[in-house]
Amino acid sequence: MLDHAPAAPRAISPFAGDSSVERRTQELGKKLLMDLQRQERGGGLQDRLYGAMMGIAMGGGDATKTEMFRFVDVLPALKTPEAVTTHLNEYLLKPAVTLPAGASSVLRFGGRSAFTRRLMSAAVQQGTRMMARRFIAGADAQEALGVVEGLRRQNLAFTMDLLGEAVTSEAESLAYQKKYLTLLTDLAKLTARWPARPILEAAPFGGVPRVNVSVKLSALYARFDPMAAEATSEAVKERLRPILTLARKTGAFVNVDMEQHDFRGITQRIFQEILCEDEYKDWPDVGIVVQAYLTRSSEDLVALRDWAEQRGTPVWVRLVKGAYWDYETIIAAQRGHGIPVYQNKPETDANYERCAAFLIENWRTLRPAIASHNVRSASHALALAEAVKAPKGAVEFQVLYGMGESLGRALVAQGQRVRVYVPFGELLPGMAYLVRRLLENTSNDSFVKKLSDHADVAALLAPPSAVVTPARPVLTLSNSSQTFVNDPETDFAVPENQERMQKALIAVRSELGLTVPIVIGGKRESSEETIDRADPSDTSRIASRMSCATRDQTERALVSAAAAFPAWRDTPPSERGALLRRTAQELEKRRFKIAAWQVYEVGKPWREADADIAEAIDFCVYYADEMERMTAPRRRDIPGEWNSYIYDGRGPAVIIAPWNFPLAILTGMAVAALVTGNPVILKPAEQSSRVGYFLMEALEAAGVPAGVANFLPGVGETIGPVLVSDPRVALIAFTGSKDVGLSIIKAAAETPPGQREIKRVIAELGGKNAIIIDEDADLDEAVLGVLASTTGFSGQKCSACSRVIVVGSAWEAFQSRLAEAVKSIRIGPAEDPATTMGPVVDEASRERVQKYIAIGKTEARLLAQANVPAHLEDAGNYVPAAVFYDCQPEGRLCREEIFGPVLAVLRAPNLDEALTMASDSPYALSGGFYSRSPANIERIRREFRVGNLYINRKITGALVDRQPFGGAAMSGVGSKAGGPDYLLQFVVPRTITESVMRRGFAPEAG
Amino acid sequence: MLDHAPAAPRAISPFAGDSSVERRTQELGKKLLMDLQRQERGGGLQDRLYGAMMGIAMGGGDATKTEMFRFVDVLPALKTPEAVTTHLNEYLLKPAVTLPAGASSVLRFGGRSAFTRRLMSAAVQQGTRMMARRFIAGADAQEALGVVEGLRRQNLAFTMDLLGEAVTSEAESLAYQKKYLTLLTDLAKLTARWPARPILEAAPFGGVPRVNVSVKLSALYARFDPMAAEATSEAVKERLRPILTLARKTGAFVNVDMEQHDFRGITQRIFQEILCEDEYKDWPDVGIVVQAYLTRSSEDLVALRDWAEQRGTPVWVRLVKGAYWDYETIIAAQRGHGIPVYQNKPETDANYERCAAFLIENWRTLRPAIASHNVRSASHALALAEAVKAPKGAVEFQVLYGMGESLGRALVAQGQRVRVYVPFGELLPGMAYLVRRLLENTSNDSFVKKLSDHADVAALLAPPSAVVTPARPVLTLSNSSQTFVNDPETDFAVPENQERMQKALIAVRSELGLTVPIVIGGKRESSEETIDRADPSDTSRIASRMSCATRDQTERALVSAAAAFPAWRDTPPSERGALLRRTAQELEKRRFKIAAWQVYEVGKPWREADADIAEAIDFCVYYADEMERMTAPRRRDIPGEWNSYIYDGRGPAVIIAPWNFPLAILTGMAVAALVTGNPVILKPAEQSSRVGYFLMEALEAAGVPAGVANFLPGVGETIGPVLVSDPRVALIAFTGSKDVGLSIIKAAAETPPGQREIKRVIAELGGKNAIIIDEDADLDEAVLGVLASTTGFSGQKCSACSRVIVVGSAWEAFQSRLAEAVKSIRIGPAEDPATTMGPVVDEASRERVQKYIAIGKTEARLLAQANVPAHLEDAGNYVPAAVFYDCQPEGRLCREEIFGPVLAVLRAPNLDEALTMASDSPYALSGGFYSRSPANIERIRREFRVGNLYINRKITGALVDRQPFGGAAMSGVGSKAGGPDYLLQFVVPRTITESVMRRGFAPEAG
Repeated sequence: MLDHAPAAPRAISPFAGDSSVERRTQELGKKLLMDLQRQERGGGLQDRLYGAMMGIAMGGGDATKTEMFRFVDVLPALKTPEAVTTHLNEYLLKPAVTLPAGASSVLRFGGRSAFTRRLMSAAVQQGTRMMARRFIAGADAQEALGVVEGLRRQNLAFTMDLLGEAVTSEAESLAYQKKYLTLLTDLAKLTARWPARPILEAAPFGGVPRVNVSVKLSALYARFDPMAAEATSEAVKERLRPILTLARKTGAFVNVDMEQHDFRGITQRIFQEILCEDEYKDWPDVGIVVQAYLTRSSEDLVALRDWAEQRGTPVWVRLVKGAYWDYETIIAAQRGHGIPVYQNKPETDANYERCAAFLIENWRTLRPAIASHNVRSASHALALAEAVKAPKGAVEFQVLYGMGESLGRALVAQGQRVRVYVPFGELLPGMAYLVRRLLENTSNDSFVKKLSDHADVAALLAPPSAVVTPARPVLTLSNSSQTFVNDPETDFAVPENQERMQKALIAVRSELGLTVPIVIGGKRESSEETIDRADPSDTSRIASRMSCATRDQTERALVSAAAAFPAWRDTPPSERGALLRRTAQELEKRRFKIAAWQVYEVGKPWREADADIAEAIDFCVYYADEMERMTAPRRRDIPGEWNSYIYDGRGPAVIIAPWNFPLAILTGMAVAALVTGNPVILKPAEQSSRVGYFLMEALEAAGVPAGVANFLPGVGETIGPVLVSDPRVALIAFTGSKDVGLSIIKAAAETPPGQREIKRVIAELGGKNAIIIDEDADLDEAVLGVLASTTGFSGQKCSACSRVIVVGSAWEAFQSRLAEAVKSIRIGPAEDPATTMGPVVDEASRERVQKYIAIGKTEARLLAQANVPAHLEDAGNYVPAAVFYDCQPEGRLCREEIFGPVLAVLRAPNLDEALTMASDSPYALSGGFYSRSPANIERIRREFRVGNLYINRKITGALVDRQPFGGAAMSGVGSKAGGPDYLLQFVVPRTITESVMRRGFAPEAG
Repeated sequence: MLDHAPAAPRAISPFAGDSSVERRTQELGKKLLMDLQRQERGGGLQDRLYGAMMGIAMGGGDATKTEMFRFVDVLPALKTPEAVTTHLNEYLLKPAVTLPAGASSVLRFGGRSAFTRRLMSAAVQQGTRMMARRFIAGADAQEALGVVEGLRRQNLAFTMDLLGEAVTSEAESLAYQKKYLTLLTDLAKLTARWPARPILEAAPFGGVPRVNVSVKLSALYARFDPMAAEATSEAVKERLRPILTLARKTGAFVNVDMEQHDFRGITQRIFQEILCEDEYKDWPDVGIVVQAYLTRSSEDLVALRDWAEQRGTPVWVRLVKGAYWDYETIIAAQRGHGIPVYQNKPETDANYERCAAFLIENWRTLRPAIASHNVRSASHALALAEAVKAPKGAVEFQVLYGMGESLGRALVAQGQRVRVYVPFGELLPGMAYLVRRLLENTSNDSFVKKLSDHADVAALLAPPSAVVTPARPVLTLSNSSQTFVNDPETDFAVPENQERMQKALIAVRSELGLTVPIVIGGKRESSEETIDRADPSDTSRIASRMSCATRDQTERALVSAAAAFPAWRDTPPSERGALLRRTAQELEKRRFKIAAWQVYEVGKPWREADADIAEAIDFCVYYADEMERMTAPRRRDIPGEWNSYIYDGRGPAVIIAPWNFPLAILTGMAVAALVTGNPVILKPAEQSSRVGYFLMEALEAAGVPAGVANFLPGVGETIGPVLVSDPRVALIAFTGSKDVGLSIIKAAAETPPGQREIKRVIAELGGKNAIIIDEDADLDEAVLGVLASTTGFSGQKCSACSRVIVVGSAWEAFQSRLAEAVKSIRIGPAEDPATTMGPVVDEASRERVQKYIAIGKTEARLLAQANVPAHLEDAGNYVPAAVFYDCQPEGRLCREEIFGPVLAVLRAPNLDEALTMASDSPYALSGGFYSRSPANIERIRREFRVGNLYINRKITGALVDRQPFGGAAMSGVGSKAGGPDYLLQFVVPRTITESVMRRGFAPEAG
């Protein structure tokens, strides 16, 4: 897979390491520092409060800082004094948190009466608001404009940034767009009256607009997705054009901000595409951001320069270090992707200087905006500008509101143009921004922190040391250590991966309609009876044709598996494990092809099809690892007696798989049986025999002995009962519906004469899974999490969310945002990467979903529904996603598994009742909770008893090893696929005791 | 429990540490050493061969020595050159074995042709025979008498010892007795002609008999058992009297030898009792052995002196260091009993000197025989004799044939009387003796080895350093570390423990007939219907009266357990574990009482009753430990996401227990359910409700909450189906017959509406277990192991042996010894410690066993049968143990579980067929193999697929943790009680995932 491998740093400008530049950097730096020291002063109440808070955060250790900032994060969502004091206590009275003497007692006692609660709550809210105001210029444009005017009086220019919630719907995107249009209009009016200030408005290359705004592209389109590059690009450009046009008309400047790394490529693409449109091609008052912490940033600069030269009009580049470092490293670790950022701060600083050198050298094409609070970085830029003989004003300096004004003033004093980045917006959505600033200012790597710690001048101005990042261990499929590593999902933000998928789709389209054979004892067989499988996205098209095994073929498959048992059981576990590892490699080889087949055979969208293969690979590698762990015999040797405890296979295993994870679940059950020494008969779902057949092919390519794996597609009702009741079968692994599962369990409990083993049934059944939304939940996350859990693969997952229970005051905001989010779903064919929800698997499913929507309309009230585009209505098995409220807890909508994108929303007055509602189900598979109350989270961990509980994230997408998957009650027998106890179900343990004492004498050790 | 705690060494003689004695010891020691050096010479072929062998053994490291001696051990059992060469290769071509250059190649190539095999085999056998002859005076008395005459010519006296196989039957005991009588007669004749030698025959206290024999008491009685002290004592005395009488008549001396520590008390008792009989009371020509390695040996000496004074006639005491050190330490470790021997050689040497001082000081009462090859020990004894002014000849010196003659001659040269211990007997039974001598001579602690290594004089004569044995860790029930320690079984060799059991039996006899109540929700209830339980040993006596739960009571028990579930599931696992630990303590408190109840309620003999309680205690402690292990959540934390994997209880559990381990199995299943958070309904077997009720009482005393444990005795057919099919029940743990087990599995697989959990059935069913006897098996062990496995608790164990398969040439000796062993069984009431087999549990069982004996008589031929004494025939449920041969593998005797002491013996031409026969059963529970072929053992480990395989030991008596117990096929669902996977069956795993990233930032660790 193509991934973001860090590029080696390279000098892109001869000035980067120049020694005269370094000398001059030191001189200019010292000057700036002296100026900064002159500016130091007592500060107002705001500064003193802020100083005190930072002192506590940094003095109490990491836990204190974490809990304080987490409290700050949740604070705006708390609606009562009780909620504030409760959260304060929950966050700050933890043993790990160290507060100044007395503070703990104040917290503890402050919560005891309504009066003190009100007092404390008001103080905390007021204090936080003051702290926020240090960094956020105002709750609305009006307030912020006052700040901007104040800056201007200090000879500081501005750019304005509207802080916003995460965009969860098109309604929110449109609102964001509208706010910018209004802002531009307002600013034009306001600034029209301003007298000229040449230092701010004149540059060697001409005028610099007075009005300057910064825009985040992702906020302009709710379905912003780098994988759907084309669709995203078109949609964003459509929203961006009015802003650009208005800006140009009013003489304003528009800067495109940069967000997380995933969005970098698509953001650059949109920026470049739109600015080459005729209307904007000759417009220079636009800019983009380059983040120097990205290992590829210097390449980006070169590409930008080349592009700008081609365009013929310069653009601005704001060079920052980057504000998502934690996020990027966390996400990369979670996904197993390469880390796109430098891992050490000095590396970023060094790269910043390299990029600045390139930028300043190319100032005529890429107008440099040096955005940093680091005096060294600024003075280095100044020195560079001198070195390349750039005229004053060619290089702009930028600082953040509330953090960099002192440096800004010092630079202004030297005649430089300085722009302040001025965020404004409501406190709640502003919290993300506030926390980011607080973290930055308390980071040990931060220049601001070093400065406030009074580090000495030499240290502050030292050139960034060239610290080399330690190489990360290379994780490959053949890694056999106990430290299992999940196979990374394909990064579809990478255009090359999008292309590979498109190519695979094309290739598979030419194969559609081929017949899936039966494999018995290593030989391919056909069958007179076949079943055609229509592409769910386009039912006029046959995806695959399944051979239907006959009774005779079923009998022969049983003979084959039974005959293969002794030799396979006696095959060393290490060899069986090696087969699994090779199978994983074979699946990896076919990765895009299998994904493409899933698109056509079951209508699975790209990412989920890819994830299914990653999971299948994980099962192979994880169970191979697990078998290694189980193979080491457990010894209990005592003098004179050696005892070991080992595992054997049980016997032939029947694997009955569902179609919703057509490769992963089949593979998981099959390879668990295989690695533990049991031959298998694979019965794929009727809807996904072609995808299931890929497992057979991969096993064969990996060298599975004939008869050890048999592939028996067929009609479940015909061959299922034969397989399940056969006395030669020792094991049945089944994933599917409750009713079928229970009937298998019942049939397997019969022990006909001649049956050697009591049958073991491993059954994973259904779910009716609920997510609880607490009053203090982060709705940005909750709305998106519920949406993904409910509509991912059209709700066709046993772990899917089908009930949401909203606690108390969270209702209003949650329901309105959820409704809008549902309406923003784009329903379409699975092959289209812009589709956010594809069809359901077949006509029967479509009818079932429609039936439940009808039931919903009688039992409850429709909150929102996604639209099936008219041209698709009859083209495939499309259903709308539908959300109902005012549901009856005892109604069918709330009790029956629908297996489609239908959601019942319930309201609960408090968490007690929410928990009761959530637990009131015959199933216990998955469940979710969105909350920022440590106590409530702790309680839910204890009391929301489902197989897989997810807190503050979606409830689907369990990963092997990380989230062993499976439930209890009517959701299954209580086993956990991809977990440490799974293989134990497939084995028989043996104890071997050897007395080694002979003639009163025994050897020392085994 | 009373145990052999090491006593602190104490000075029992003022001369022990005297400095003038030490000075004199050095002088005399140097003289002896000089004499020894003078005697050194080249040696004959025998000496050179022996030297070469010892060189290889010691030069190749521990593994080489071990394998060589193990080969020597098996050699006499090998009947063909092929067998010899095969074993040579198997033992000596292991990677760990280091042979001299070329030897490995000789071994490898020597096995390739019949000719070289014959050659090699002959050479090895001849060489070993020569080596044996160094230590064993001859194959029979005639050969040995020649040796004795030769010794006399060197002025050395003798005592003769007949080497024998382990005694497995009364026939063998009687043969042993007869050989001694013949020996005494022959010796009288031979020595009558000898001229007098005063140095050997005159002592200060009068004449010393010319003829001297050493006798092992355990060989005189096949059922020799220190627990059955009275019966053993009477039987041995009866066999010993003719020997003593003949000896006295012919003027011979009889020494009673000392064997393993278990036998010490009973041996002393018999010695003292018989010598106080009128016929022997005034006879001084008798002796006993004291082993100075025993920490209690000095106490024994004091007691012996007091006894001898009381008797009025002196006896001899042979002071040795002790030859069973390895055995004693191994057995103590296996049983968890205190180690009775000093753990460091210098401690033994120091104790030897203390004991010698006491003995020599008391030479008039206890005539000292100083038996040691250690020059220091001998010279110290000489110095002591001088110090106490004992006349020459008051102290005798003894050495072993083949090891101590040089020292003997040196002492003779100083005018001392020296006696050589002369063993004789066939090579095969002599191997144990030979291996013991080889080990002694290659031990680094051995004086003989140091001498041959030419250690310097000062080192050889240094006083034994007072090395302090490191204290062993004290293991208690509350030990909560992961290192589980089995509760030791009561050591019934200790008279105090015998007394406690007798007292408990008396106490319980007065309670017999009491009614066992029902306990529901913490309240005792009665029932109109009760069932009387007769004592199986005496059916005229009512042991207990069981209340029979009604349907209404069953319903209320279900209500009670279901109501108790949520709170019990939510009780912290540590508290549940603590309940188990307290329960273990409560059981321990009632230990002897419960054992006594088992004697009367199910007819279980002492040791097995006690073991049942130890196992119950083990289950409590082990599962508490296991729960601790499982409670530590399995974490899979990655940046920004914390994942844990924990376990919950499943729900109310029904525990249906058998009567054969009436406490242990009930307890094991119950506490596994309890500790994992599941309330239980205990349904004890109808035959053992009183013993089962002890668990209820112990749980209550330990503080189990009301309703968490309910006790529901009743008729299985009535309440069983109600319990099993109830929708509130989540778990059924059953141990019992296959048919009932399969019907439970079937009933539990129904899932009626309203049932919350899919029922989990944990079932341990029957067995039809086989032991294979290989051609080279050690028959001493095999006969006793088969006997114990077949007849222990009258064969009423699911693990009991009911088939034996004898390979090839092992047949003759095995069948004849087994037949005699079976005939030697003493059938009697369970309360009598002399009983080796008690009754079966009830009349139905008796009839069943009798039916199978009848079947055996038609299907096969009776090899042997134990006798039910006539007076017991109608007194209780007594059946004979019966062994059949010429059995039909397809017959009922070989296929059906009998659950009684009936054994089918089959013959197989080779191991292949033996294995096929052994595996040909619908069951796969336990199995055994007796062999000394490393390759065959390895093969059986792989291919004899039973739940519990035992090699070279009995196949019953699995211990918790050491031998997790349970089988596959029709023997159960493949779970293992007392093993690492057992508790997993009682839980539901949960995965909890928390996304901890907020605003792109996450704390470091959970």
